[in-house]
Amino acid sequence: MVADFPHKAPRIRQDEPLGVSRYIDFLPLAKFDRTLSLGEGGTPLQPLTRLMAKFGLPPIYAKNEAMNPTGSFKDRGSIVAIHKAKAMGFKTVGTISTGNMAGSTAAYAAKAGLRSVIFVKEDTPKEKILAAGIFGALVVKVRGEYAALFRKSFEIGRSRGIYFMNSVDPYRIEGYKVTGFEIFDQLGGRAPDLVFVPVSAGGHLIGLIRAYQDLTTAGYLKKSPRFVGVQAKGCAPIARAFESGKDRIAPFPNPRTVAHAISNPSPPGGNFVLRLIAENGGAMESVSDDEILRAQRLLAEYEGIFCDPASATTLAAVFRMARRKAFSGRERIVLVITGSGLKTIEDLDIAELDVHEAGIDDLDTALPDRLPVGK
Amino acid sequence: MVADFPHKAPRIRQDEPLGVSRYIDFLPLAKFDRTLSLGEGGTPLQPLTRLMAKFGLPPIYAKNEAMNPTGSFKDRGSIVAIHKAKAMGFKTVGTISTGNMAGSTAAYAAKAGLRSVIFVKEDTPKEKILAAGIFGALVVKVRGEYAALFRKSFEIGRSRGIYFMNSVDPYRIEGYKVTGFEIFDQLGGRAPDLVFVPVSAGGHLIGLIRAYQDLTTAGYLKKSPRFVGVQAKGCAPIARAFESGKDRIAPFPNPRTVAHAISNPSPPGGNFVLRLIAENGGAMESVSDDEILRAQRLLAEYEGIFCDPASATTLAAVFRMARRKAFSGRERIVLVITGSGLKTIEDLDIAELDVHEAGIDDLDTALPDRLPVGK
Repeated sequence: MVADFPHKAPRIRQDEPLGVSRYIDFLPLAKFDRTLSLGEGGTPLQPLTRLMAKFGLPPIYAKNEAMNPTGSFKDRGSIVAIHKAKAMGFKTVGTISTGNMAGSTAAYAAKAGLRSVIFVKEDTPKEKILAAGIFGALVVKVRGEYAALFRKSFEIGRSRGIYFMNSVDPYRIEGYKVTGFEIFDQLGGRAPDLVFVPVSAGGHLIGLIRAYQDLTTAGYLKKSPRFVGVQAKGCAPIARAFESGKDRIAPFPNPRTVAHAISNPSPPGGNFVLRLIAENGGAMESVSDDEILRAQRLLAEYEGIFCDPASATTLAAVFRMARRKAFSGRERIVLVITGSGLKTIEDLDIAELDVHEAGIDDLDTALPDRLPVGK
Repeated sequence: MVADFPHKAPRIRQDEPLGVSRYIDFLPLAKFDRTLSLGEGGTPLQPLTRLMAKFGLPPIYAKNEAMNPTGSFKDRGSIVAIHKAKAMGFKTVGTISTGNMAGSTAAYAAKAGLRSVIFVKEDTPKEKILAAGIFGALVVKVRGEYAALFRKSFEIGRSRGIYFMNSVDPYRIEGYKVTGFEIFDQLGGRAPDLVFVPVSAGGHLIGLIRAYQDLTTAGYLKKSPRFVGVQAKGCAPIARAFESGKDRIAPFPNPRTVAHAISNPSPPGGNFVLRLIAENGGAMESVSDDEILRAQRLLAEYEGIFCDPASATTLAAVFRMARRKAFSGRERIVLVITGSGLKTIEDLDIAELDVHEAGIDDLDTALPDRLPVGK
């Protein structure tokens, strides 16, 4: 059922829709089992026409991974990893998570008829626990250091026969390639010039870079796009190493950012990401919480996309590079939007929004004057 | 730009993907303007294989409308109505909403570069207000009766030149047809036998029924599926009228249900829905909050679908009819899942989920015994 990683002549299956089945030749799966699918993939690549016009940006697109079944890009990895878990005969899968991974792993386990065990940090908000627990997952809030928990999970996995499909699981990373392939197809069989991706553990970026390496090897492309990995200034272990020319990351002290989904002070794939970015000719950027929150608002107000703060780091990084005049203006840019704003809604400040109160009888007069009268 | 309602020879455009563009012949639009799109439509039709096996149900599928851009079926209507608003030259659109409609209208207005005005009930939870306000909408919390607000919105719309695209807006309803067309195509060019739909104002059900009337008129189908409209027992004005053989609804006193998205005590389309259901040979059902919450859990635990309570009424109604032996066992059943559980997460009871706490060092021993050791 599950093949080795593919060795030769992979082709895009033009008769299949966007998603795993179209790119199965490039994946370590013999066959796509539709009974495991929740309809992941085939997410829109939306041209950000209004932001482009307003801010004089180069052609820019959002690949909206928030439109996956559980609201984040994690589903791309979960569908491939769950194929592998089934094929290897596991009855239980697990993950450690600060949020998105928990819901995704629990949902795919449920669909596959497997048990799931989710370890979360003790301060994980109740909503994230509910969003995994609803799928019947066993959720454990764990006191202790996150990096130690990462190692501990593999120990428990080995002793109890649980497949821990954590952030840098090799099959999970293979799943992230599919997003890269889709962008290529959605641009009409061309690669973008620059791809902006929020970076936490690094697995997502690794998968996306590999997609274009695969397409180049298979003869679909002459060269890969350049990648810009983005972190929040409040937790930027990889960006900080990149900026100071180091080839190894150091744990980031006192992480503190509104972009919780990428607040990972000791990313396990960090050194590997640094090397990949260097080979790719790309860069790491870091952006402040103010820049992140402004970018989140702009994506919503101009493009109708409500993403989480982690996703908004990508647009914030574009603005930073635009201020540095880092673009020629002809680049085609893709932002990878990684998660839905609905999952982090408690972080919004209602005082900044345009909210009023009125009685039904004085509703008309209570409307602000700036609201136009007449078309 | 915007044509009259179509009169003759509409065809499914086989070379277009699922969504508005594929069924444009059946819609009152001359052309699909991609710059207005957020990637709505093309939602999965997921076979509920595990629930079917577990409970001995007929072949049953979920059409997962929660996977639309703002997390609900409302986006289907918003994309068509916003085309019309642009074509008619409106600069501002509006809606009244208890939740899903607010976010959808505000998002599509933002993408189109239009202002939006959203009237919500004064007790609307903060999260719903944030989920609309983030798009730059002017949100007004209005004290007063919801049905009166519905009328008032049209008054304000006329005097100020604002297009209020409320729940039973004719163009909105045309957009809901697309979901019906997609189900037909996703079943390989066949209609299901039974379609279960949560009913609030009635617009969604009206649109879905019309889709199959259109397909029948155009020669694609011999007969329409039968529709089962579902309401919560705590607010069931249409189901109550149906059950007592009346042809007019009465306002439902003291509405109270966990299915907030369909808690509408005086649905404006109610009498029309009653007549349509009768002509269709369908039925109205009502289900209790306990049945709803159980169905919500089962959809998550067996199928990996986390929907809101309103959506779960559909599965609850299937169980009710199964207990009455209302199925032959060969029907093909479609449940229309209307909204994401992420939007109503505060309604879940964490005490009912499998949540534990442990320190990192006693994590292994703290895992429940029932968790299997070894594969």
